[in-house]
Formats: sequence, structure tokens, C-alpha cells
Amino acid sequence: MKIVLLHSGGLDSTVLLYHLRNGGDDVSCLRVDYGQRHSRELDAARSICDALDVEHRCVDLSSLAPLLAGSALTGEVPVPMAPYDAETLKATVVPNRNMILLSIATAWAVSMKSDAVAYAAHGGDHEIYPDCRPVFAEAMDRAMQLCDWHPVRLLPSFVGKTKADLVTIGSALGVPFDKTWSCYLGRNVHCGACGTCVERREAFRIAGVADPTQYASAKRG
Amino acid sequence: MKIVLLHSGGLDSTVLLYHLRNGGDDVSCLRVDYGQRHSRELDAARSICDALDVEHRCVDLSSLAPLLAGSALTGEVPVPMAPYDAETLKATVVPNRNMILLSIATAWAVSMKSDAVAYAAHGGDHEIYPDCRPVFAEAMDRAMQLCDWHPVRLLPSFVGKTKADLVTIGSALGVPFDKTWSCYLGRNVHCGACGTCVERREAFRIAGVADPTQYASAKRG
Repeated sequence: MKIVLLHSGGLDSTVLLYHLRNGGDDVSCLRVDYGQRHSRELDAARSICDALDVEHRCVDLSSLAPLLAGSALTGEVPVPMAPYDAETLKATVVPNRNMILLSIATAWAVSMKSDAVAYAAHGGDHEIYPDCRPVFAEAMDRAMQLCDWHPVRLLPSFVGKTKADLVTIGSALGVPFDKTWSCYLGRNVHCGACGTCVERREAFRIAGVADPTQYASAKRG
Repeated sequence: MKIVLLHSGGLDSTVLLYHLRNGGDDVSCLRVDYGQRHSRELDAARSICDALDVEHRCVDLSSLAPLLAGSALTGEVPVPMAPYDAETLKATVVPNRNMILLSIATAWAVSMKSDAVAYAAHGGDHEIYPDCRPVFAEAMDRAMQLCDWHPVRLLPSFVGKTKADLVTIGSALGVPFDKTWSCYLGRNVHCGACGTCVERREAFRIAGVADPTQYASAKRG
């Protein structure tokens, strides 16, 4: 199958990239600069794709930042640190991010006559992210099949799996975890203490896989 | 109701702007620069909103142009002139344009806690535009209600109406038709011969409303 993958350069979407290629799919990667605080994740995405000789594109949506004011990811409010609970995490929600990314990926898929768009929405994405729910994915799948005479499917990748499951899958596929980037802060190494760092460390611990990530903080949340 | 309107500066969305305000709605307008050939339409949108003292924003999506190669609106292939039939019009389709625009309008609506997003998809939008069909709007409405804990509705504005109906409605509301822009070309006045110019002229003729538009060509398609 010919697939456009939303690839952020993070752990989840990189495991999905390896998983799809392992299944014989022809994958093209799309990453989006929507005005993040830093480009560590985008740099990671680029080098992972280059190493695999996978076609990849970046689109700049930083002009959306004024519309998305109020989200930590776009620089308006402080990044929440551990403890990683629903209240602090809400500050990291970019309004309607997944629909925006999926709509652009679908445009590219239509113009390339790809069969599907994939994104790594798994069960570990907390309930505070409404656009990671299966019911949202189903609604988008329907809209994506109707938006053009060339229908595009949305692949329900990793639904029902946890982040620890993804570490297990990625480990078996030889994913270079050390090349992926999760930290909300854009320093030289992962901070080890922000919400996603805590989640990342915990996933490796639960999966029983050695974590090759270098963290600034030894503390575990 | 608090509404985000996709307002291009064209005839259809300007009639919708007047229609919603006439009904007492609190309207904010969003226009998108997605790498069009010219900015006449965007300039028209700005001045129409300013004259009404309506809040308006423009987001720049011109970085999407490489993904949308193959569409006349983004500069890759010649603009089709009349006769205005399905084959020539297909060249003006921007892949998945409406889903992209609606997803961004929804993001803004969520961040402002607006109730709904409106766009002027009417029955006169030819069948070659799959993303102007009611069935597509219904699928998007569902996705928009699920994308955030603050649900946003998609208003099915002008479904079942023709462009001539819109001219009739707009005429009764005092829409300044001469300030709206339809032409695919970006010259000083409407060319009068491209697909949308022919459709615009025809709509005024059918509605029996005097057309204040200045056309370069007197020829009617």
C-alpha cells in the first residue's frame, strides 16, 4: 500500500514508520512545523527519514500560531513539568491539531494517489486528547473518503496499544530509539522531567527494554 | 451564535457574512492565503470586513503549494477559460482544500469557544468538487464535534441553493457586490471570460439583478 505517514520524529511515529515499512508498504513522511518551541523533533524526523532513504516533506504552519494561542507547544504558556497529570497536560493541547495535520496529509495523499494516511494515535494518549480517540479517527476516516473522488483511508494504527507496547514493537524492528526526540524542551539532551520524558522513561521501564536516551535529569517522575 | 466564517472575499462567502450578521450572529472571518496566483480576493475580503467592523484574520498556507502541485489555483497549470465544463474545471480543484480550511477554522473556533464554523458551499458548486457535497459536510460536522471537548458545529449554509439564489439573497441584504472578487485572474478588473466570471455573470442574469461588476470582456460564455 502507498501511505502518507505523519512523522513527527518522536518515538511513536518512528515505530510506526518502521512497522509499515516492515510490512512492505511504500511510505512517504510528512512533518509539520506549526510553531513549536524548538526544532529538535523536526531535525530528528529528517535524519531518521534520510537514513532510511524515505521520501519526506516539511510544511510550515507557523502562521497558525496566533490562532493557537494558549498552548504550551506554541510558546504562550510554560511547559508543564512532572507530575504528569491531566490538569498540567491540558496546557500542551494544540486545538484541533490532528484534524489540521490529517487534512494536509490527505491533500498530499490525494495528489500522489496514495491509498491511505497513517498516524500513531495509541491508547497511551491520555483521555485529555479528544482527537486521539478512536471515535474521532472513525469520523475523519469517513470525511477523508468523501473529500475527493480518489478516496483516502485513515489507518487506525496502534489503537488499543500503550506506549510500552510501541517500545516492544520498535525494539523488535530495530528502531534507533536514540535518534527519536520526545522532550518538550529543546535542549541538547532530553530533560528527563517534563511530561513526555516521564512517559518515555516509563514506557521503556514497563517494556523491559534498555532506554538508550540521554537524560539531563536522573530523577524519575 | 458565535461563528467563525471562512470568508474568501468572493460573492458566496460575502453573501453568507451579511446573512449571518443579519440574523444576529457574532461573526469572525478567516481567510487563507494558500498560494493563490493573486491576492485580489484576499484584499477584497479584508476591505469588506473592515467596512463592517468585523474581526478578521489571514493565515498563510503558501508553504503547502508544493504539496498541491497540479492545480491551476496554485500556479502550476494554466487557468481554464470558458467554456466552463467539468473537464476544464477539474484543473482548478485544490486537493482537499475544504477540509484544510475547515480544520483551521475549527482550531480558531475552539480557542475562542465559538459555537460553529460556517462556509458557503452551495448547490451551484459543481459535482466535480466532492468536498462541496452535503455528505462531506455531514462527515466533517461529526469530526468537528469530536475533535475537542468543546464541540464545534459546521453550519450547512446555502446547501440546496444556486449561485443565482445567493445573488437574490445578497441583493436584499445590500451586499456590495462590486467589492467582492471572483475572477481566477488577478488583473485590475474581472476578466469576464474565466470559469468563475462566466458563472458570476450568469448568476446575476438568472436572478434578474443588475450586475455592478466591471468586466474586461463583454463576451458572455
